[in-house]
Amino acid sequence: MVLSPFNTRLRAEVERKQSRLCLGLDLDPTRSSRLHDATLNSLREASLTIVEETWDRVWGYKLNFAFFEQFGAAGYAWLEELAAAIGERAMVIGDAKRGDIGNSARNYARCIFQHLNLDAATVNPYMGQDALEPFLADPARGAFVLCLTTNPGAEDFQRHGNDHPLYLEVAAWARALNDADNLGLVVGATHPDDLAKVRQAAPDLPFLIPGVGAQGGALEPAVACGASECPSIINVSRGIVYAGEGSLDEISAAVEDYNQRINELAQSHGL
Amino acid sequence: MVLSPFNTRLRAEVERKQSRLCLGLDLDPTRSSRLHDATLNSLREASLTIVEETWDRVWGYKLNFAFFEQFGAAGYAWLEELAAAIGERAMVIGDAKRGDIGNSARNYARCIFQHLNLDAATVNPYMGQDALEPFLADPARGAFVLCLTTNPGAEDFQRHGNDHPLYLEVAAWARALNDADNLGLVVGATHPDDLAKVRQAAPDLPFLIPGVGAQGGALEPAVACGASECPSIINVSRGIVYAGEGSLDEISAAVEDYNQRINELAQSHGL
Repeated sequence: MVLSPFNTRLRAEVERKQSRLCLGLDLDPTRSSRLHDATLNSLREASLTIVEETWDRVWGYKLNFAFFEQFGAAGYAWLEELAAAIGERAMVIGDAKRGDIGNSARNYARCIFQHLNLDAATVNPYMGQDALEPFLADPARGAFVLCLTTNPGAEDFQRHGNDHPLYLEVAAWARALNDADNLGLVVGATHPDDLAKVRQAAPDLPFLIPGVGAQGGALEPAVACGASECPSIINVSRGIVYAGEGSLDEISAAVEDYNQRINELAQSHGL
Repeated sequence: MVLSPFNTRLRAEVERKQSRLCLGLDLDPTRSSRLHDATLNSLREASLTIVEETWDRVWGYKLNFAFFEQFGAAGYAWLEELAAAIGERAMVIGDAKRGDIGNSARNYARCIFQHLNLDAATVNPYMGQDALEPFLADPARGAFVLCLTTNPGAEDFQRHGNDHPLYLEVAAWARALNDADNLGLVVGATHPDDLAKVRQAAPDLPFLIPGVGAQGGALEPAVACGASECPSIINVSRGIVYAGEGSLDEISAAVEDYNQRINELAQSHGL
């Protein structure tokens, strides 16, 4: 079966699931939760349990590779198992923030798209076009390019260049590379005033928007900056997997609550 | 034993080994070589063999994580085995080009410094200071920040900002963060005219210089931009591991040859 381009699949999945919610499965051995302790096996079981409980109500999952890699090869085996367990039931973004040249970029893309069989990856723009291209080669798989991130350090370089701030140049550049309809942008919800500027620079790219919830970003501007052809995918990680005491009931209720709020906001903005 | 700051260790190792050569162990299943075929086990054995042959004549090794990650968990197990096999016999740079926020950055640093016990990592500056800090927390471990890379895409953003090009801002910014004497820069040998500009912006940081050999960068400006307090570490990957037909003798001779040429150039520049 030949799959549609990634951005078409992204929209179809929003329709099918009636969800723009991406759940970040960032399970942290240093946090307490009803679902896990600090051991790898307990984290592993918790991640699989959360997927079984939530897959039919989320657009997809974001797997931040750092949370797996901290355990080395054993963490990578967990990542492989979790990706296979999700399978076709939801979209999966490999939040690896990779960026490297030539062969290296191809190897990273191979890991994420072939070996792990994920639907999309996050990519760092600092090294330019040839670092991005291997992630765009298969139209069915997508790349979300880091544009404006949620952290304090976003101010160090992403606004570099006064009248032509780097993050808007990245947005326009990414738009120009979207020949295969499989490119999106990562724009943090913690910059509500800038979401509209990025939308203007890239009117036809979907956004992956982290920073809602624990990081303090507001939901409304994040949802509202979407368009019907390129919806905002809203990522929530800690705000869901550590809701309340982190029990499965609380996680499930948090998914329900975020979904409802996001859908109501989308509807109120005619999206 | 409390180790010295990374940049002190870097200099001491140049003295001890009489080498500024970093060998990039980028073994590629799609290339033919006398030492390996396309299987993971053959690549693994080749990497261990090359280390046994070369460790006493190289400053260190650069392990590009992409070449391991393409095999998933099994590749990570190879990376763990190889890092342990090198041990204290040479410096090891984890060329992972990581860049992420908060917890994620800490998890990546934990993987590279604690789990794999490597000496240094390469880090992407796009996300700013808080993405870098976890890599600087232990003075004995170092971070090389990507400044000006060897690939065509380096032109896309790294010179952004006309009179204040981003790569020079990154260099000055990194210099200001070098409180613990454990920070360096990645500057490609393919930009010989810019090496001197980066040196001016960061007179007291060591450079890790890729791009010599297969990528066409010249050796002399790469060596000459070093200073005795912050030598250039010259990385060669394909130019050594695929020298000739890639036999152990040819690899060994290429190490010898690069070392001699680099040392003669350093001497002729009074370094």
